[in-house]
Amino acid sequence: MSIAITLPDKSVREAEAGISVLDFAKSIAISLGKKAVAGKLNGKLVNLDTQLNGDAELEIVTKDSEDGLEVLRQTATFVLAAAIKDLFPEVRLGQGESQEDGFFYDTDKDNGQLTVDQLPAIKAKMAEIVKANAPIASKTLSHDEALAYFANEPFKKQLVEALDGDVKGFQLGDFFDFEEAALLPSLKDLKHFDLLSVAGAYWEGKSSNPMLQRIYGTAYYKAADLEEDAKRRAEAKERDHRNIGRDLDLFFVDPKAGAGLPYWMPNGATIRRVIERYIIDKELADGYQHVYTPILANLDLYKTSGHWDHYREDMFPPMDMGDGEMLELRPMNCPSHIQVYKHHIRSYRELPLRIAELGMMHRYEKSGALSGLQRVREMTLNDGHTFVALDQIQEEFKKILRLIMDVYEDFNINDYTFRLSYRDPKNTEKYFDDEEMWTRSQTMLKGAMDDLGLDYYEAEGEAAFYGPKLDIQTKTALGNDETMSTIQLDFMLPERFGLTYVGKDGQEHRPVMIHRGVVGTMERFIAYLTEIYKGAFPTWLAPTQAILIPVADAHQEYVEDLKKKMLHAGLRVEIDDRNEKMGYKIREAQTRKVPYTIVVGDKELASATVSVRRYGEADSEEEPANMFIDSVEAEVKNYSRDGSRKPSEAKKVLGD
Amino acid sequence: MSIAITLPDKSVREAEAGISVLDFAKSIAISLGKKAVAGKLNGKLVNLDTQLNGDAELEIVTKDSEDGLEVLRQTATFVLAAAIKDLFPEVRLGQGESQEDGFFYDTDKDNGQLTVDQLPAIKAKMAEIVKANAPIASKTLSHDEALAYFANEPFKKQLVEALDGDVKGFQLGDFFDFEEAALLPSLKDLKHFDLLSVAGAYWEGKSSNPMLQRIYGTAYYKAADLEEDAKRRAEAKERDHRNIGRDLDLFFVDPKAGAGLPYWMPNGATIRRVIERYIIDKELADGYQHVYTPILANLDLYKTSGHWDHYREDMFPPMDMGDGEMLELRPMNCPSHIQVYKHHIRSYRELPLRIAELGMMHRYEKSGALSGLQRVREMTLNDGHTFVALDQIQEEFKKILRLIMDVYEDFNINDYTFRLSYRDPKNTEKYFDDEEMWTRSQTMLKGAMDDLGLDYYEAEGEAAFYGPKLDIQTKTALGNDETMSTIQLDFMLPERFGLTYVGKDGQEHRPVMIHRGVVGTMERFIAYLTEIYKGAFPTWLAPTQAILIPVADAHQEYVEDLKKKMLHAGLRVEIDDRNEKMGYKIREAQTRKVPYTIVVGDKELASATVSVRRYGEADSEEEPANMFIDSVEAEVKNYSRDGSRKPSEAKKVLGD
Repeated sequence: MSIAITLPDKSVREAEAGISVLDFAKSIAISLGKKAVAGKLNGKLVNLDTQLNGDAELEIVTKDSEDGLEVLRQTATFVLAAAIKDLFPEVRLGQGESQEDGFFYDTDKDNGQLTVDQLPAIKAKMAEIVKANAPIASKTLSHDEALAYFANEPFKKQLVEALDGDVKGFQLGDFFDFEEAALLPSLKDLKHFDLLSVAGAYWEGKSSNPMLQRIYGTAYYKAADLEEDAKRRAEAKERDHRNIGRDLDLFFVDPKAGAGLPYWMPNGATIRRVIERYIIDKELADGYQHVYTPILANLDLYKTSGHWDHYREDMFPPMDMGDGEMLELRPMNCPSHIQVYKHHIRSYRELPLRIAELGMMHRYEKSGALSGLQRVREMTLNDGHTFVALDQIQEEFKKILRLIMDVYEDFNINDYTFRLSYRDPKNTEKYFDDEEMWTRSQTMLKGAMDDLGLDYYEAEGEAAFYGPKLDIQTKTALGNDETMSTIQLDFMLPERFGLTYVGKDGQEHRPVMIHRGVVGTMERFIAYLTEIYKGAFPTWLAPTQAILIPVADAHQEYVEDLKKKMLHAGLRVEIDDRNEKMGYKIREAQTRKVPYTIVVGDKELASATVSVRRYGEADSEEEPANMFIDSVEAEVKNYSRDGSRKPSEAKKVLGD
Repeated sequence: MSIAITLPDKSVREAEAGISVLDFAKSIAISLGKKAVAGKLNGKLVNLDTQLNGDAELEIVTKDSEDGLEVLRQTATFVLAAAIKDLFPEVRLGQGESQEDGFFYDTDKDNGQLTVDQLPAIKAKMAEIVKANAPIASKTLSHDEALAYFANEPFKKQLVEALDGDVKGFQLGDFFDFEEAALLPSLKDLKHFDLLSVAGAYWEGKSSNPMLQRIYGTAYYKAADLEEDAKRRAEAKERDHRNIGRDLDLFFVDPKAGAGLPYWMPNGATIRRVIERYIIDKELADGYQHVYTPILANLDLYKTSGHWDHYREDMFPPMDMGDGEMLELRPMNCPSHIQVYKHHIRSYRELPLRIAELGMMHRYEKSGALSGLQRVREMTLNDGHTFVALDQIQEEFKKILRLIMDVYEDFNINDYTFRLSYRDPKNTEKYFDDEEMWTRSQTMLKGAMDDLGLDYYEAEGEAAFYGPKLDIQTKTALGNDETMSTIQLDFMLPERFGLTYVGKDGQEHRPVMIHRGVVGTMERFIAYLTEIYKGAFPTWLAPTQAILIPVADAHQEYVEDLKKKMLHAGLRVEIDDRNEKMGYKIREAQTRKVPYTIVVGDKELASATVSVRRYGEADSEEEPANMFIDSVEAEVKNYSRDGSRKPSEAKKVLGD
């Protein structure tokens, strides 16, 4: 029987039914057969020995593709498990998985656990297995055979029990493991791999399950790629806000006191307070009215808003107050700001009406997803909602965007992209139903971006249900994409809450709501800043801006006087008069990444100067004390807009 | 049979069993019989016709006592109900009660409700009933008789059903009502009463029950007392922060969105923000380290702290996170600050260690107890905890007290008293068990107060379980006592959490914890300020500090320039260039209690001056514009320490 195989370029090749993926690849070109590591059959990865039994779409997966990397890493998990069982037969296996940047395998032991100390031995055993290059063969066990095989593997057994029929996998010598998809045809390609770390992970991601040890590793086809990855990881680790947060005593999370609930230590709290005051003042100057609204509301509010119906899985459980009231921790601030809007009859004269708040919100995130300040359960959002008439959308959108770009300049943030999200034109029924509103507003947003001369990419189908939006995207140290700022139109909530304003005509009209965040949540923004600054916060944000070190007792008075003057100038300054060596004190100030270390001895006292050493510089310079204080005060007022930075292209066209 | 009746002065009189309270009073003195309105039998109010059937303690209640007033007001509720049923037979009665400052009765109607418009008619009917002076007779109905009598009174019926046996009450003409205790022997004493207001109240205080209409009134024996009360109420109403809060658009509470959860409108939020920044800066300058800690924690934290065992009824219900974790909204911030303390090993060099936060907390208050910003379910406390060595208690206590008094000066708060609370020396077993700690610390606190030369009163038995404390007491507009600031020693929590510091000796020691609040919660403090300032906030706190009014278009540019200069000086200023009459604009600025109304016309433009009208003054004065701006800037920097205020005595002795 002949079958028709459609290739990625849409060409169709005939083949004999029953041909293997590998043979089919060879039939196209011998060289393709050599490069092939798996197939992608109707969109699913399959092993090279898979038989083609009917018409299908097929892609031959080669080493130089993303899928090729996944096959390599899946093979690595298999070999990792085999090596572990060989070295530590008493270890019970969980599951392995390939990831975007590597792979992992979960393990458990009755007595003690695998630790990083064992990784070299395991890695050596893996290399040994690879070198032996025994064949890996596809193998299918019946349900009962699998149960018998995994009799002493409780986690594996659980997985088998959850399955209905046969269990597909691979055999390597004595070792068999599950594997639905594809492994490499030969182990010889698994040369460039490494084992990286060990961390706790709940079995199946549920904290009610036992905690297993997750062994992380990575693998590449080329030695150079593995090297580059190692460099990237070292850099990411150096920038990782969790490490810096610990070293600089910015914050901590104690899962016993509550997962995903950070405690901001005085240093981190100082940075946060400076940013909170900064952004509030910026918004007040820009015409916003700041409010404080409760972080709890009657559940009915979130039923009206639709959050309870569509967003419940991200919400905390409601609290039964025993008097008929159900209270809910708010997942978003918009319904609260709608309450503020509705508290008065509004007139067209008040529009655009801009309500802003540092609004605390709670989101239920799975404990496995929590990470430092980046993924938390309690967060404070630099939130704002402006209520506009339809014909004000474009101007207000520009105004918000100007505010965002202005703030980015103040923080010296340059690395971001604009994503303009529209509804899917082929599925308009999936969106809030107001044809004219969508057409007009999408045109207005695009027009605004073009007017401002900004580069952006358009994402059809990425709009929210309730309206189009602009997202400003950045990357974390670990390479994850993040939305920093957002401007979202909303036609739905004004409708659901029956919002109105009295127009010039004396009639009631429906406003449009714009959700906007400038710096996002305090948690995520400060995590981001920590990473881009590598903990060396610019002077205006640094928890301690200067450390004053007297050389001897004779200089104490002078130092105290300097401190008083600096405090008066609003600076955060400390004296280090501990009984330690000068070099030790200076080194410690550098480790704490304090912008200015000031040493004062006889010479400085005599000439009313200070000896200033900037963070990261090896030498110090002598300056008149008053000039130094004035210059730091001016620097702080200028935020991070220092001379060394490149002005971003965007700013030029924004004007005022 | 003869019985022995013990009088309040402990003298004992013999009497014949069966004698009524009235006859017993007459047997002491005819005049006492005339003044008597009820008896207090073994501590319980009873009617004058009550028979004395055994040995007992008895007090004859006369008009000039608190109890006498209660009897009068209880009688008023009875007459009020009779009057309502006479005028509106279809009204269904709830319950009536006498209160500290008056009385009320709850009512319900199927169609429509009683409103303030009906109060004059009801009051007239009450006067008519009093004038008729028909006898009120004690009467007891059997359970079944009562059920039959109240067949058409569902609420009364419900009360009867909840009782076991007979129903005691009084009969006046056709009207019968419940009454366990005492009514006046004759209606002729019920002359000086008034009906005041109507408000919704849930039946039996439960929000799941129907909302009834509560009619409020008050009554006195003397016309002069009623008059004075009316004056006091008018003054209280004028000062009541709930009324001012509505008129000045400071905040609102919407029970449908959540009882006891205030929304701070932009005006109120401005006041709060200014105070928050002020107090944080003050504390930072005083050696505190500010933190942000999560408002939720694992319930275990509050089990360790003891809150869950001893304070549960004031706490919100825990949230089951579905992964084995129970999260609880924190009722207090102390456990959070203990987490901060415990995050590092602490040394004696760090003590006193001062942790502070604007900490949001949640307390479960019954919905009936909620009131504006004074009693809320969500609040933000100006909280702080200092950790000290035992021998540092006195100095730290003084330092905190100096901070509090300094802050009071800044707000011009003068009307308060100091209450020093000790443990009850006769019941030392009711307190945390550390004899030496109590003795030493109570002596230290008293010594500190004496050193500072402050007046205070000592309250034995008013200490917390965990240590002695100082409370600073103020009064609300409604006359309620309130604790504004507090300094509390705590020996218990350091023990429960195993807190330590490493002493000079290299050994571990237990610190003492001091809980302290300077301005208390933002909610209660701003309610208090609103009342003492009657809404006319001093310039540094006023939401809008100045309104600029151009006389004509020609002055617009000058006014814009003034505004820019004032914004630059950090002032909150508006331009009123609406198309309205000058007089209207000035009156509105006064109604909004804006400190400065600035009018600018030809004359001012020509001479670079402004015409300044201070809030509450009838005339305006011309001043050079720059001088005016400088003087307001200086005024703001000086907080409320203006020349017009009397320096408090306390300040003088505090020194620095």
